Amino acid sequence: MKKLDKITPLENNFPKWYQDVIKQGDLIHYGQTKGSMIFKPISYGIWENIQIKLNKILKKINVQNVYLPLMIPMSFIEKEKKHIKGFAPELAIITKTGNKKLEEEFAIRPTSESLFGELFSSSVRSHNDLPILYNQWANIVRWEKTTNPFLRNREFLWQEGHTVHSSAIEARKFTRKIIKLYAKFLKNYLAIPVIVGKKTSKEKFAGAVSTYTVEAMMKDGKALQSGTSHYLGQNFSKAFNIQFTNKNNQKEYAFQTSWGVSTRLIGAIIMSHSDNRGIIIPPKIAPNQIDILPLFSKKNVEVEKESKKMYKILSRSFRVRIDVSNKGVGFKASNSEIQGTPLRIEVGPRDLKENLITLIRRDTLEKKQINIYDIKKEVKKILLDIQKNLYEKAKKMTYNNIVKVTSYDEFKNHINNKKFVLVPFIGNAQDEEKIQKETGATARCIPFEFKIQKNKKCFFTNKKTKRLVLFARAY
Amino acid sequence: MKKLDKITPLENNFPKWYQDVIKQGDLIHYGQTKGSMIFKPISYGIWENIQIKLNKILKKINVQNVYLPLMIPMSFIEKEKKHIKGFAPELAIITKTGNKKLEEEFAIRPTSESLFGELFSSSVRSHNDLPILYNQWANIVRWEKTTNPFLRNREFLWQEGHTVHSSAIEARKFTRKIIKLYAKFLKNYLAIPVIVGKKTSKEKFAGAVSTYTVEAMMKDGKALQSGTSHYLGQNFSKAFNIQFTNKNNQKEYAFQTSWGVSTRLIGAIIMSHSDNRGIIIPPKIAPNQIDILPLFSKKNVEVEKESKKMYKILSRSFRVRIDVSNKGVGFKASNSEIQGTPLRIEVGPRDLKENLITLIRRDTLEKKQINIYDIKKEVKKILLDIQKNLYEKAKKMTYNNIVKVTSYDEFKNHINNKKFVLVPFIGNAQDEEKIQKETGATARCIPFEFKIQKNKKCFFTNKKTKRLVLFARAY
Repeated sequence: MKKLDKITPLENNFPKWYQDVIKQGDLIHYGQTKGSMIFKPISYGIWENIQIKLNKILKKINVQNVYLPLMIPMSFIEKEKKHIKGFAPELAIITKTGNKKLEEEFAIRPTSESLFGELFSSSVRSHNDLPILYNQWANIVRWEKTTNPFLRNREFLWQEGHTVHSSAIEARKFTRKIIKLYAKFLKNYLAIPVIVGKKTSKEKFAGAVSTYTVEAMMKDGKALQSGTSHYLGQNFSKAFNIQFTNKNNQKEYAFQTSWGVSTRLIGAIIMSHSDNRGIIIPPKIAPNQIDILPLFSKKNVEVEKESKKMYKILSRSFRVRIDVSNKGVGFKASNSEIQGTPLRIEVGPRDLKENLITLIRRDTLEKKQINIYDIKKEVKKILLDIQKNLYEKAKKMTYNNIVKVTSYDEFKNHINNKKFVLVPFIGNAQDEEKIQKETGATARCIPFEFKIQKNKKCFFTNKKTKRLVLFARAY
Repeated sequence: MKKLDKITPLENNFPKWYQDVIKQGDLIHYGQTKGSMIFKPISYGIWENIQIKLNKILKKINVQNVYLPLMIPMSFIEKEKKHIKGFAPELAIITKTGNKKLEEEFAIRPTSESLFGELFSSSVRSHNDLPILYNQWANIVRWEKTTNPFLRNREFLWQEGHTVHSSAIEARKFTRKIIKLYAKFLKNYLAIPVIVGKKTSKEKFAGAVSTYTVEAMMKDGKALQSGTSHYLGQNFSKAFNIQFTNKNNQKEYAFQTSWGVSTRLIGAIIMSHSDNRGIIIPPKIAPNQIDILPLFSKKNVEVEKESKKMYKILSRSFRVRIDVSNKGVGFKASNSEIQGTPLRIEVGPRDLKENLITLIRRDTLEKKQINIYDIKKEVKKILLDIQKNLYEKAKKMTYNNIVKVTSYDEFKNHINNKKFVLVPFIGNAQDEEKIQKETGATARCIPFEFKIQKNKKCFFTNKKTKRLVLFARAY
């Protein structure tokens, strides 16, 4: 039996708190080699639920799932590199099989852009074939030097959407459709509010014409880029020769988009909702929505029977666990808490005689005694309320910590106070680099929701601009 | 627009037929490098449905999904090799990142046995922690010299279950539970009948004490091993030091099982059900259960409107596609056929005036005109019937082609006639090798369902035995 150690308070040491929450919650198992980790049932369960829910949403807009090879010939990577400057993830490279040297080396996919390029190049012919809306769920390898669970790993899981369109307008529209869909998904399922916007040209994906992002505020005030959607224009279609015959029977390079979210979202959930007792998982994507805990030191037949009955009934509508072991009352409760189950039900012998059970919410720790016959109705109501409460709390935290300033002094001050800072800014990439060097903050996005009507002075260059940019320190 | 080429008749050239069905059905796209292929929406869609259905079944018996690293340190592989003789898949090996040579090389997982070993070794402590029932959905790489889509690929997708138990009896029971679960799954969802049994010691997985298998008969009479479940005993727990404290407070090596099915099942579906018009996909796992084909040469507002209405209604209960393009009637119909959609609905302008539509079954090609108001009821009934019919046909084919013989001459004769041959057999691995060399047949399994009561003479060694073994040529 695992001893439940304490978690470092988040106010004292946020990175340590994050590590503790993950370890104590039994979310992962560290491998014996650097940077490798195992997704245990709770973290993988979150990812599975994200997959199920997002798949449903993507299928509604006619996106189809496909699966491309893990191993990419180095010649493809070179082709991509030649055309798309600036995107150079550290590759893991296969050079031999058994003891035989390979004639051509393979990279493990750091993204599947080049293979999609090859696929589209050989299958797109006419405007009648378009749009093609593909998505892939896959594992990705990038040989990161420093790693941090869920946030930066040598291997991670993601979905990558790749679409081909016959017009720039249609592709641009689709890029924005996806970023809004991500924002809604994070709000409705992960209970995470996000700031949606466009990346500055310094921060956009090297292969893109424009990049849109959803940025979420973590409990330490840092931003986490939680999903991106790229309008690729004709960059990749020119690199990979993806041409179609248009309505006027002329050859034209196709217009593309790509977009993705990853297991980073698990990190986002942890740092948006959790507390000093451990992770709190929003009910809609929690692998275990309810823990039923029969409380007895020695087996109690009646308590066990009623608990199992409850388990059977609730399992029809919810994801439920039951712990009928002889472990102590306190251990069972802390175990449920530290693993972030949104709601636990305690079934004790004395209460049961009066048909009473106790519901304890993970988010507010509120206890409520209810009649056992009201269970289904009550559970449903409380789970909905937890989902709503988590979102409202995160939203409050986010919007209470966004400030608008106009001078660099104020900017520095607020960045040091862990704020999201909105400023009129029209500087270039070098200006952004200077700001980052001096304050640690980067341009997160040009947000959709905040606008200025009249020209203002740029806080950094003093030039006139209507562009409002969100800066923050970020993961 | 893709031209629909002809498919080589299966009677003429079965391997060519298989390749044609896959190509014409747009199931995959061959990559530019040998052995690499892309799962396009129809084949990946089948795999997704297999995942969804099988996950539900596995979760009901408390199996939890986890995810382990793709890259395995070579030292782990060596550890496994030292203990488990005879399992030596050709490994793809990562030796460098970018241009930097790695200190320790990594293999791409050919299975995750060794990583599960390490995980269990460091997390199993007491009998209270057991059983642990884990499963992983993952991509696997084995550097095969000859490849065949879905059947033998350098990369494939599978699920691998790994469980740990505190007693041999419990682990053995679980091994058999899984093989029966696979048999039921193949029957109920893929409409594939299987022969369930135990492998001979020559044919079992090298690391297992015993291996159980589900063997299906393909339309060319060959067997396809479609799923296996291994009782590993203490082989891996001794190799990886997985010990637990038992109820008497003594240390004991744990008992393990492992089991899996893979994207091979897509090959099984093709070769069990398809015909000279292309693939036929069982409705329960078909990515598209219904194709709605509005028939018009020029757009017809009424036909399109009614078709879209139908699409909306049917989409609530079924997986439906609609093709509102101006493509010709014949093209739309053959496209639906060749992609194996179980049921297509043709909506023509003349019929529609009388509220009539035509349903065409993919399996029997039967046409039925029905009133548009009966659509939901009719569609449901027909899809169920197609599922049943596919299973019945495959079952008939399988059982009509199983023969019981007693002499080697008869055996050779029937193997040449593409039969599954049941024989009393008690020979050893060398005998099996001789038989294979002389006839091409291998011992598929010692089936559960066929028994002999009294001792008979072994068809090969003449020794007395009650053991009945199923032989066939196999993929």
